[in-house]
Amino acid sequence: MKSAAKPASNPIGKLVIIGVGLIGGSFALALKKAKAVNHVIGVGRTRKNLNTALKLGVIDEISLDAREAVRDADMVLIGTPVGQMPDVMKLIAPHLGKKTIVTDGGSTKQDVIACARKHLDTHFKNFVPAHPMAGTENSGAAAAFAELYRGRKVIVVPQKETSARAVSAVRAAWQACGANVVRLQAREHDEILAAVSHLPHVAAFTLMNTLAKRKDAKRILGFSAGGLRDTVRISGSSPEMWRDIFLANRVALLADVDKFINEIKYLRSRLKAGDGDAMQAVFEHARHVRERWLVKARRG
Amino acid sequence: MKSAAKPASNPIGKLVIIGVGLIGGSFALALKKAKAVNHVIGVGRTRKNLNTALKLGVIDEISLDAREAVRDADMVLIGTPVGQMPDVMKLIAPHLGKKTIVTDGGSTKQDVIACARKHLDTHFKNFVPAHPMAGTENSGAAAAFAELYRGRKVIVVPQKETSARAVSAVRAAWQACGANVVRLQAREHDEILAAVSHLPHVAAFTLMNTLAKRKDAKRILGFSAGGLRDTVRISGSSPEMWRDIFLANRVALLADVDKFINEIKYLRSRLKAGDGDAMQAVFEHARHVRERWLVKARRG
Repeated sequence: MKSAAKPASNPIGKLVIIGVGLIGGSFALALKKAKAVNHVIGVGRTRKNLNTALKLGVIDEISLDAREAVRDADMVLIGTPVGQMPDVMKLIAPHLGKKTIVTDGGSTKQDVIACARKHLDTHFKNFVPAHPMAGTENSGAAAAFAELYRGRKVIVVPQKETSARAVSAVRAAWQACGANVVRLQAREHDEILAAVSHLPHVAAFTLMNTLAKRKDAKRILGFSAGGLRDTVRISGSSPEMWRDIFLANRVALLADVDKFINEIKYLRSRLKAGDGDAMQAVFEHARHVRERWLVKARRG
Repeated sequence: MKSAAKPASNPIGKLVIIGVGLIGGSFALALKKAKAVNHVIGVGRTRKNLNTALKLGVIDEISLDAREAVRDADMVLIGTPVGQMPDVMKLIAPHLGKKTIVTDGGSTKQDVIACARKHLDTHFKNFVPAHPMAGTENSGAAAAFAELYRGRKVIVVPQKETSARAVSAVRAAWQACGANVVRLQAREHDEILAAVSHLPHVAAFTLMNTLAKRKDAKRILGFSAGGLRDTVRISGSSPEMWRDIFLANRVALLADVDKFINEIKYLRSRLKAGDGDAMQAVFEHARHVRERWLVKARRG
């Protein structure tokens, strides 16, 4: 199911982005760049971010009423934090067209699917759960850019009810953004993401706050170099979005946090004992696995 | 004691770099670029890295005998991991000229100073302990580049015995590299570095190994995005160097690791309880402090 970027043969006529942030905004910009969409309506809670999106050409039209906006839409992307999806789905379900395809960019999938199953009603067959493996620490429409998804994986999680037509349209849209589409089971998705995305956020938030709580935080941060800056980069991510992700993926993430705590306690015990050989072995292993991974990633 | 980059008025005649890696090699390249040095001799344990350094113009001459190389040197920079410094200092002490200035780039200072006090004998007054706040995850002469120190802080830790002439020469050399020279006490240096440099390495090594130990490590890493990559970047750093740093700064680092463990346990407890408000507060605080720090860093 992987694929290289290719131009969309049938542009999406009317695309509605609910939540025009980094994810939804970049989706719109990438589709526009690929001439894979004709008209983009942005829906949001506040006018300020939508004005920015309009000004930057991310969207063509502003709507503050999702019900109104989704009428006659060919595709709706829900780009809000996952915690808002129940309300959004409840709101739009009665107003969706029979053929309107709905998809999302949420960072967890089991909860989003359960929510869609509950609220989208007869439209559930047109819903394609999806999650692009891309992002930055910045949020809002101003953070969006057309190249965000180029060469990145997008995971789609179609259910047994999902229509082939809907899957094919969502896949084509992401391919037009330059992404490689991969299919996973929802539970598998959530477990993998807990490890490679949510746990790194736990580490980054924890490190940043460990330093932040010091009385001399301001002064000591002035002595930091690029190492700290990169290690905590993602602690700048949207707090609301990450609260929702942590709540939604609580069980899988707890298991990974426990593994991390065991691992740091081991390193602490070797540090306390002054066991240089054991520490060096820990560092060698980390370096080795990282290098192998990056070589593979560079090959694509 | 801060200063902008300025050309050295008196170029260093003969500079010896013992350990031509990222730190020593970049020091040599930066001084050459600033025309602040006439001749650079590189000393190392293996010919391979020195050949690379010679080929890349990092050094002008290779020596496998530190004793021989330091004779008549105007300045010697010890750029080895801190664990090798006792042997290096013992070896070169009897061969140093009366006026030869010795400095280092070691990541810890209390241990290096104790070692120099013990081994450099009458030359201790010419020794200026120093540590540039710069680096990358790459090591070896091939990783060196002239711009590494531009705009970065270099901490110098002169002792009561240290001659003003030596401090002034080392300060001038780092200023020629484009660095801002700041003076700290040794203990203060080690405590600050434990927090802003050594602890981030603990977090990065731990995160990388938590993932690396999974049976499906290779597969799940294929789903990672830039967040993980940046968070573990410094886990690619030299294992030998970091073993030495952890051993040398054991006490200060242990205290910081314990703070980190407390912090992650708190976040874990809030995750387990499904306490979204508390988690969001953690994330907000991290983001806030990070933003304030980066605004300040950009201002210089």
